[in-house]
Amino acid sequence: MQDTPGSDLDFIYGQFENFIQKFFSEREACYEYGELFRPLYYDLCEFVGRKGKRIRPLLLMMSYRALGGQKSFSDESVLRCAISLELLHSFILIHDDVIDRSEKRRGLPTFHKLVEQRLNRLDGQERVGQNVAVVMGDMVFAMAIRALLEADLPAEVRDRLMGRFLGYATDTGCGEIYDILLGVRDITRVSREDILKMYHLKTTLYTFEAPCAMGAILAGASEGKVKLLCEMAEPLGLAFQIQNDLLEFSHFESDDLLLSTDILEGKKTLLIREAFDRLNEVDKTFMQMCLNAPVRTESTILKVKDLIQKSRAVAYLEQKSLELFEETDRKLDAAEFSEHERQELRGMFKAIQQQVRVVSAAPQAPKKSKIFSS
Amino acid sequence: MQDTPGSDLDFIYGQFENFIQKFFSEREACYEYGELFRPLYYDLCEFVGRKGKRIRPLLLMMSYRALGGQKSFSDESVLRCAISLELLHSFILIHDDVIDRSEKRRGLPTFHKLVEQRLNRLDGQERVGQNVAVVMGDMVFAMAIRALLEADLPAEVRDRLMGRFLGYATDTGCGEIYDILLGVRDITRVSREDILKMYHLKTTLYTFEAPCAMGAILAGASEGKVKLLCEMAEPLGLAFQIQNDLLEFSHFESDDLLLSTDILEGKKTLLIREAFDRLNEVDKTFMQMCLNAPVRTESTILKVKDLIQKSRAVAYLEQKSLELFEETDRKLDAAEFSEHERQELRGMFKAIQQQVRVVSAAPQAPKKSKIFSS
Repeated sequence: MQDTPGSDLDFIYGQFENFIQKFFSEREACYEYGELFRPLYYDLCEFVGRKGKRIRPLLLMMSYRALGGQKSFSDESVLRCAISLELLHSFILIHDDVIDRSEKRRGLPTFHKLVEQRLNRLDGQERVGQNVAVVMGDMVFAMAIRALLEADLPAEVRDRLMGRFLGYATDTGCGEIYDILLGVRDITRVSREDILKMYHLKTTLYTFEAPCAMGAILAGASEGKVKLLCEMAEPLGLAFQIQNDLLEFSHFESDDLLLSTDILEGKKTLLIREAFDRLNEVDKTFMQMCLNAPVRTESTILKVKDLIQKSRAVAYLEQKSLELFEETDRKLDAAEFSEHERQELRGMFKAIQQQVRVVSAAPQAPKKSKIFSS
Repeated sequence: MQDTPGSDLDFIYGQFENFIQKFFSEREACYEYGELFRPLYYDLCEFVGRKGKRIRPLLLMMSYRALGGQKSFSDESVLRCAISLELLHSFILIHDDVIDRSEKRRGLPTFHKLVEQRLNRLDGQERVGQNVAVVMGDMVFAMAIRALLEADLPAEVRDRLMGRFLGYATDTGCGEIYDILLGVRDITRVSREDILKMYHLKTTLYTFEAPCAMGAILAGASEGKVKLLCEMAEPLGLAFQIQNDLLEFSHFESDDLLLSTDILEGKKTLLIREAFDRLNEVDKTFMQMCLNAPVRTESTILKVKDLIQKSRAVAYLEQKSLELFEETDRKLDAAEFSEHERQELRGMFKAIQQQVRVVSAAPQAPKKSKIFSS
């Protein structure tokens, strides 16, 4: 694996994609609720089946193997655990998109927009679409748990997995609530710590920690090793989210204003916070005014863009995200794994970094400073 | 139990109420997400702790005992199963209230209104309240499953319970979607069968079938007996919902227009459908116009009320609901239970009917016709 992380990843990816299709075909009989519901099931198949990065299932399957898991990647018990995380993700996306009133997801309509489109002659179709999507999200959450429940595993392994899974789902919910509540606070009342906490709860835990921990548990790893993996997932998760902020901003800088939902929504991202910190008092006031405007117009949005550029926060965060990727590697080097495990995990982190990386390595050697220690 | 269903019910009710408090106290440590989240946890405690009928936990505990369960009602494994259904109910209510934009629940603010009130100086507080409530509902769903997962039970019993629980949650979701989609259809395109199906999926299954089946499984009952109980739950569930329609309408008839959300929302209830069927062509047209009006004004609502009264559908449904209660009793008499089981179950159904009954028995002897057979 260490020589060809890319092609290995392609293989696992392919296995997983096939399984999604198989899973939804088999599952169809459980959703035989009649003609009114059927199109929604197909919409869901399409939504979950859209080309995505599949970070969570890939990480789960790779960490399973890295920690000594012996089953092949076509084994259904492994694939069921993997799909439970992908379905958790789909459920979160469906609700998130309703909450943010987003219109696009993976280049196609969000779930509530799909429903809305089916109702195009009706009054109140927008609200109906959102309402149906909320409930459909709930059903996907139940589907995710069922996938895990039905994995053919020893009872105690499944209990450990289920306990973790529900814990992560809860953490993620709290992170989303932080996101909503911080979004309506004035930027001066949102600390960097608040944002880091929100990022950790909302994304890192279910995207990086959950698959690493669950893959390891599935392989029969000790709690000690699971804990080490969780520690490595932390900087990786933050790096991923910084890269995400930067990606959104690059769309924003190019042209597609509609794509950068976070800025349109007045979300308190780390980019906004870091930019704000670097502005002089006059510019800070401008930024505050723009973020607090009840309706964001093109001019307020462009002003925010200018202020972010002026702050040079982008360069700072590019550097930080690279350092965070390195932090994961350093933690791996220091952790008590066998040489084989370490090699496998290195391949896994490398492959995942390639999947998520937007910003490529800067030419200068990155500093080894402790990140966000202040 | 058969002699004093009332006082026995009071005892079980008391045990369960005490457990809710204990559960939320113990659980608090799992929701230690900081000061921003803490008030929401307390709001949730208040919301779940509000005086309710507790039909689901009571039915679960009583059917457990009726089918030979030996543990006392202070046993945590039984109480955890019971609370999992009450939490499922809370989760459903929280989402339902957001979907219907309801303002009151059990005489107090709905969950999203509680959140909204905490944000009273902010712009967009209404939407923030709804968004937070959607996510909080998700977290309550996870809490419900966790309660069941942590019940100290043999693995195979818990798996059976969990499988059923997730199935019922899924059915309920589909029922809610039917409710939403039928709500925006013209009444002429909503059949009585559509409404009966929606009632069954949305309410009967998780309110009556789930607790009966889960209580029986917990007691170690065979699948055969579980199935018999499910068949008895069906007419009981429909009777309950008819009584609910009638209760809403009686509020509506008295004065409190705000209370009758279903009619305000243009929901396709059985009462609306039965009334429509009994009207002449001119009145049918009026009813259609009122139900389809994009904004319901006082005059359209009063017109609907008049038409329902004119139709005499209320008297018909009062009679039907009494017949349905009897149908449950008849099914019990015919089912293959031991005499002891039958006696216990009779006590249970009697106690629950007293809890849910709004309309008291009519003086004339009810007919034994098959209900809704056409």
